[in-house]
Amino acid sequence: MSEGNLLYAQSGGVTAVINTTAAAVIETARKQKKIGKVLAARNGILGVLREELIDTSLESAEDIHALRHTPGGAFGSCRFKLKSLDEHRAQYERLIEVFKAHDIRWFLYNGGNDSADTSNKLSQIAEAMGYPIHCIGVPKTVDNDLVITDCCPGFGSVAKYTAVSVKEASLDVASMHESSTKVFIMEVMGRHAGWIAAAAGLAGTKASEAPHIILFPEVVFDEAKFLAKVKETVESVGWCTVVVSEGVKNADGKFLSEAGTRDAFGHAQLGGVAPMLADLVKRTLGHKYHWAVPDYLQRSARHLASRTDFEQAYAVGKAAVEFAVKGLNAVMPVIKRKSQNPYTYTIEAANLSDIANHEKKMPANFIRADGFGITAAARKYLQPLIEGEAPLPYRPDGLPDYVQLKNKLLKQKLPKYSISDK
Amino acid sequence: MSEGNLLYAQSGGVTAVINTTAAAVIETARKQKKIGKVLAARNGILGVLREELIDTSLESAEDIHALRHTPGGAFGSCRFKLKSLDEHRAQYERLIEVFKAHDIRWFLYNGGNDSADTSNKLSQIAEAMGYPIHCIGVPKTVDNDLVITDCCPGFGSVAKYTAVSVKEASLDVASMHESSTKVFIMEVMGRHAGWIAAAAGLAGTKASEAPHIILFPEVVFDEAKFLAKVKETVESVGWCTVVVSEGVKNADGKFLSEAGTRDAFGHAQLGGVAPMLADLVKRTLGHKYHWAVPDYLQRSARHLASRTDFEQAYAVGKAAVEFAVKGLNAVMPVIKRKSQNPYTYTIEAANLSDIANHEKKMPANFIRADGFGITAAARKYLQPLIEGEAPLPYRPDGLPDYVQLKNKLLKQKLPKYSISDK
Repeated sequence: MSEGNLLYAQSGGVTAVINTTAAAVIETARKQKKIGKVLAARNGILGVLREELIDTSLESAEDIHALRHTPGGAFGSCRFKLKSLDEHRAQYERLIEVFKAHDIRWFLYNGGNDSADTSNKLSQIAEAMGYPIHCIGVPKTVDNDLVITDCCPGFGSVAKYTAVSVKEASLDVASMHESSTKVFIMEVMGRHAGWIAAAAGLAGTKASEAPHIILFPEVVFDEAKFLAKVKETVESVGWCTVVVSEGVKNADGKFLSEAGTRDAFGHAQLGGVAPMLADLVKRTLGHKYHWAVPDYLQRSARHLASRTDFEQAYAVGKAAVEFAVKGLNAVMPVIKRKSQNPYTYTIEAANLSDIANHEKKMPANFIRADGFGITAAARKYLQPLIEGEAPLPYRPDGLPDYVQLKNKLLKQKLPKYSISDK
Repeated sequence: MSEGNLLYAQSGGVTAVINTTAAAVIETARKQKKIGKVLAARNGILGVLREELIDTSLESAEDIHALRHTPGGAFGSCRFKLKSLDEHRAQYERLIEVFKAHDIRWFLYNGGNDSADTSNKLSQIAEAMGYPIHCIGVPKTVDNDLVITDCCPGFGSVAKYTAVSVKEASLDVASMHESSTKVFIMEVMGRHAGWIAAAAGLAGTKASEAPHIILFPEVVFDEAKFLAKVKETVESVGWCTVVVSEGVKNADGKFLSEAGTRDAFGHAQLGGVAPMLADLVKRTLGHKYHWAVPDYLQRSARHLASRTDFEQAYAVGKAAVEFAVKGLNAVMPVIKRKSQNPYTYTIEAANLSDIANHEKKMPANFIRADGFGITAAARKYLQPLIEGEAPLPYRPDGLPDYVQLKNKLLKQKLPKYSISDK
């Protein structure tokens, strides 16, 4: 017999496989007798505060299954951080009220650091208020910055997209370089850590292969050294592919993309460290350049997802439900690497208190001594994460067959709540 | 018995499927008794001038077959335009000398307008010099601007990449818009015509679906009208995806990306019309934005090639050889649309003189009356070109299994030639 309902919510920047986790949560929960309905918050925690809850029982099994290959966040996500219990106590209490009103006994929050923190605090306040709920954090972030877990679902796919794109674009540059573009610069996400930039390094294994230069946020940008390396690469290879993390900083600790000049109206130089570096290369070395900024394309490219990532995204969703019904609380299913070749892993429960407010940095030994590439240790860690493909169905019109859910909201039971309220 | 050798060369910007055409040329020519060796010029016409000819008979059947799914230009391409016979007569004569030295009886030049023009002139001068050669232009260009042919190999794949990428990134924006990015701007190639921008329109069919705004080079940019449309879209849909062609111009006929401001050092604003429009939206409407410029990624994304495009790229390569051995001269295999649903076509021979120096513009009735989208006529034309997938093998390490040929050069027989010579 059902003991109550389960609520699932998505948080922060979405990924190519966050909906794969959503599918796992719903498919696993539907098989559990303890669980009544699976509800999903509209736009993450904002939807819980507003009591905007989607009734996923109205979605067909077929549509839920199709979530596995649909990018974006099917129920909506948000950028909204609850502050401390002291500052935002009313908001935490409101969440518990919504849980009570809809008989929610399990809350699964799919996100990164902030979501782990929110889930952890919610479990604390629920206990203080005497409301029995199990709060589970479910890992997801292209930033790959959660501690304890081997990697974060979402990262493997953006890593694969980046490595493949660098490889493809570099074949283009290689074939044209003699009379056209000599330097190609691609900017990738990663404001605080160079995980995605590092993944680009998987595109090649020899010094002559792209990417020839990777610029990490972990390494202070040295203009002279960078230009010397570009010059040397163009002289030896004939052309040069540079991958630059959006988070690269100068010696003053400023983002390169923001440390630039201002235009005639005094506006800060329009974003993009790739165009800025391209201009630098042109002015100093005179090379013809091209630059690319895939931006959201990199984290939504479900058509090029990694099999490892896809399977892990499903596995953590499934485990989250299993942990929840087992009675675990304030935990997150994490990925533990068991062996390297073949890559195997298990899913285990880790305490949210050990995860929230920590950030996994890229190990120093992942960056080559010259600062422009990855080491064998990085390659060993990253390699399994981009392995395998996760094919998806295409429609007759040539577009992927992505699903759009009905997302019907439950009738509200509580007074309207304005989030600007304390 | 062999009557001589065939020379194949690649020209201009490469595509996801130009090597598919190369594979077709080599595989078809290897079966022809009339044809001795298939040679390939290194870096296009530059390689012919320099007598840098690759002996493709040293490549295995397996590697040639793998060219079918390898992007870039396997033998190197170039941006180099031969001028008129009067201005560059010595260069044309040099080409004929190289043909003679290596017993080249068939010359297949794989490119766009310029290559068609070069092939045509070569056939004329060969005749004037009494050297028997068959010159065939083989169509290729992501710009889709060759006349007579229904479309140009290379375009269908960039069209599919663009439509799929807009769809995927827009699912991301849709799920985050309530508390994050409201306006997403993606810049696509097309300096003179909006074919690729138009293809983005295939991503959605309803007004609420992305892309909500397409900016074509064919439509003068009207800032007020554009901003009003962005405002209206954000109000009604909640967010807005804009696709902008790099070739969009203002009322003075200047590229928007170049008409911008200069930075504090007097440098022109660093390229990219997408960041420029994003800044405009932010300053006037205050919306949070993201922008993407996929650049070379769009034309090298073999992992997302269109089946139609892949098959056509192979078909024109095969037909080019067949036309050549049949004795046709100064022609190009073109695609003739025979039926719409199902999409069927034949490959026919068209005179290079009718193709060279002409440019196919996008028909006016392909652009919606408001200037911001495509019409049913455009959809009817574009739809079949992105249909179907062309899967490719992946290696165990998660990267596509792209081939690298040996590209061994033939021994030179002629004196060294410097291209700066007249």
